[in-house]
Amino acid sequence: MMEKKIIRSLRDIVGKENVYTENSDRITHSYDATQKSYLPDVVVYAHSAEQVSEVVKIADSLSIPLLPRGAGSGFTGGTLPVQGGIVLVLTRMNRILSIDTDNLIAVVEPGVVTSELQREVEKLGLFYPPDPASKDFCTLGGNVAECAGGPRCVKYGVTKDYILGLQVVTASGEIIRTGGKTLKNVVGYDLTKLFVGSEGTLGIVTEIVLKLLPKPEAKKTMLVQFETIDGAARAVADIIRAKIIPTTLEFLDAATIGCIRDISPIPLPDECRALLIIEVDGDSDVIEKQAARILDIIRPLGVLDTRIAETDAESEEIWEVRRKVSPSLRKVNPDKFNEDIVVPRSKVPDMITALEHLSEKYDVPIVNFGHAGDGNIHVNVMVDLAEDGMQEKVDMVMKEIFHAAVALEGSISGEHGIGISKMDYLGMEIDNSTLDYMRRIKRALDPNNTLNPGKIFESDVSG
Amino acid sequence: MMEKKIIRSLRDIVGKENVYTENSDRITHSYDATQKSYLPDVVVYAHSAEQVSEVVKIADSLSIPLLPRGAGSGFTGGTLPVQGGIVLVLTRMNRILSIDTDNLIAVVEPGVVTSELQREVEKLGLFYPPDPASKDFCTLGGNVAECAGGPRCVKYGVTKDYILGLQVVTASGEIIRTGGKTLKNVVGYDLTKLFVGSEGTLGIVTEIVLKLLPKPEAKKTMLVQFETIDGAARAVADIIRAKIIPTTLEFLDAATIGCIRDISPIPLPDECRALLIIEVDGDSDVIEKQAARILDIIRPLGVLDTRIAETDAESEEIWEVRRKVSPSLRKVNPDKFNEDIVVPRSKVPDMITALEHLSEKYDVPIVNFGHAGDGNIHVNVMVDLAEDGMQEKVDMVMKEIFHAAVALEGSISGEHGIGISKMDYLGMEIDNSTLDYMRRIKRALDPNNTLNPGKIFESDVSG
Repeated sequence: MMEKKIIRSLRDIVGKENVYTENSDRITHSYDATQKSYLPDVVVYAHSAEQVSEVVKIADSLSIPLLPRGAGSGFTGGTLPVQGGIVLVLTRMNRILSIDTDNLIAVVEPGVVTSELQREVEKLGLFYPPDPASKDFCTLGGNVAECAGGPRCVKYGVTKDYILGLQVVTASGEIIRTGGKTLKNVVGYDLTKLFVGSEGTLGIVTEIVLKLLPKPEAKKTMLVQFETIDGAARAVADIIRAKIIPTTLEFLDAATIGCIRDISPIPLPDECRALLIIEVDGDSDVIEKQAARILDIIRPLGVLDTRIAETDAESEEIWEVRRKVSPSLRKVNPDKFNEDIVVPRSKVPDMITALEHLSEKYDVPIVNFGHAGDGNIHVNVMVDLAEDGMQEKVDMVMKEIFHAAVALEGSISGEHGIGISKMDYLGMEIDNSTLDYMRRIKRALDPNNTLNPGKIFESDVSG
Repeated sequence: MMEKKIIRSLRDIVGKENVYTENSDRITHSYDATQKSYLPDVVVYAHSAEQVSEVVKIADSLSIPLLPRGAGSGFTGGTLPVQGGIVLVLTRMNRILSIDTDNLIAVVEPGVVTSELQREVEKLGLFYPPDPASKDFCTLGGNVAECAGGPRCVKYGVTKDYILGLQVVTASGEIIRTGGKTLKNVVGYDLTKLFVGSEGTLGIVTEIVLKLLPKPEAKKTMLVQFETIDGAARAVADIIRAKIIPTTLEFLDAATIGCIRDISPIPLPDECRALLIIEVDGDSDVIEKQAARILDIIRPLGVLDTRIAETDAESEEIWEVRRKVSPSLRKVNPDKFNEDIVVPRSKVPDMITALEHLSEKYDVPIVNFGHAGDGNIHVNVMVDLAEDGMQEKVDMVMKEIFHAAVALEGSISGEHGIGISKMDYLGMEIDNSTLDYMRRIKRALDPNNTLNPGKIFESDVSG
């Protein structure tokens, strides 16, 4: 337990009602979507950058670990208090400060929920593209910390591509500003992009300047059923090779389809061994042309059925198929180990082959779906941990999956970050010299290791 | 002069024929586009990352300043050997290593000239958007070092947005790799974007992985003459407000038009007080619609004449008007001080007003043109330094221009960087805490201050 004196200081900063020390409060802030759990000493809710600054100063001066936290929807343990300390929750800093339709920017606090911002800007004819699956509850601060992605990144890029500037509280409690409100800015080092994806280890984001786009005039959603996974993979490659970049190119493999067959709003026969959800957006005439060309391209590749949404409701029905996936996977086995590897688009078929081979070799079901258009595959190793030696088997499978991704010039994480889950595998992708370079930045900017300690590259890394 | 022993070591690394110590060689590598000049001790041409690494190791161990250099076309002195030392030229590392049409990426050495890459990828139906004015002679390595922009950035973004990965030689001579070949990658800190725009002060880029786009099907170029600068500025704002993002939105003010009137391929009458060059690209039907809408929007704003290019040759003729600008400015006065401030798009009219006011207040011609679509204005203070006290006057005007840009939530440099030219003004835009954060990164990654010393924030900074 934390000393009374420290608790009193925290209460002085944020008010008594924003400091939680009860067991129940600590437990509810002890886990994230990884379902691992570490108990913090105290939970503090901040309402301003100044409060964040004061809390950080206490933590830094007393060597107390400080864990910034949004909605806790991360998949790699980024917000978990693995060494105890203060969990600093930013969800009540949730104001949209401005939406500037002249300059196509928005300024928000970190606790704003992603889809809330999207709804608000869409009312004004604008568009914020990044769309992580958790967008209805995750926060923009968390999106910045992890550099969140989503299906639309094929065409529109990731969170990083939409962050123009930040207000950040540093490890010593100073409030700094990076970047600004202009698209061009080459004044000093780009601290903005350094903070994006740094998983709360370099500073705490307290304000975000976002770039917006005009809202596309129309979109067209298609669900295509394939006889083989090869056909679907070739379709992805051929569409890009034809110089068409759809908004989304989502794929589901046969095992995934098996999980949702009973509950899918659209019938998925046994012969359907792979699905693509293809969406194009933009000018209404152009998307008609693009859709027609896409259908021409994929026709020879073993297409069983094509459904083209004519209305928003029909489009939603297609996306409902995709949304059924995550909640259904546990039908295969009770325990899920999900990773989000990424390979160059053209290597998706090779990666799928490698995954099939590993599934056979280790006799474990591997269920794959995700963002084929940018090579980002959500790989789910489904097991029953109650079985003897299963954790060790999972560890071996995971390691081989990561090796395969890196061997194909890919990466061990496309969207979820490293956190604690992938720390041991970091050395597979990044050599020691480069890791040393990153560690030097961490030490220079957080010399007391106050901010989110024990994350990304704290432990030994080995190939 | 450099010790014979060191020269011998350098010759051992790159070969005798790639080490230049003659006065004439040193003089030709002593200046860049700022026309300031500092003599290096020796000039070395490298042909591989390994050679760069070995040269850096010598420099770092002996505390010799090392200045990476491409074409030397920079506008802020980024490559100037202000403290002498080794100028390391990378223009002979000029191979396009691969163009991958399946994954829309290219891998190049830093010495490749920007427009050469553009031509090569366009042959394959692909597109590399960043287009600095110097694209026919500047190098991609220099573009990365300065985060180059250009007219097309309004729609397509800057160099940073197209850099997926780098090979970099660090200050200690290690060869590291950052990022990779995938659009998504959240594995450790984003060193890639940290290097882009770091002006050669953190590492030397020896290989670049670039993101490409499909080449737009068609483009449409329009030259619009306005009665007033206000009309042109309002046109820019109204086009963006109508949710149209053209490829380029270039503007020329009355003073600029005056400089080119006699040599313009398109007649520009005295009544024309401002020009916009508007280009849209994409699907051929869409650009027809966009062009028509743009003309509707701007019609009430005092348009004198509109020329719409129907052929590539006519488009080239319009761009020729723009290209005449830089070589013609010295008609006004022999000495040019050009800056590339940037303000939020909607503040361009306010910035123009401020510049007119300063021109009157100090009785100096200020000639303005540039990328109005992203608020990036090339401001040229034209004087005759032979006049008494003129340099002091220029310094005062510059300071006021930067103050005005920052007061409008803008930046003192959109494309050109800080180098030595803007070092003294850095503190106007970036507060001391943030600067300290940047300096800590520099010290952590280049502890002996070997790489491009005396640049960006070496001197005292004051507001």
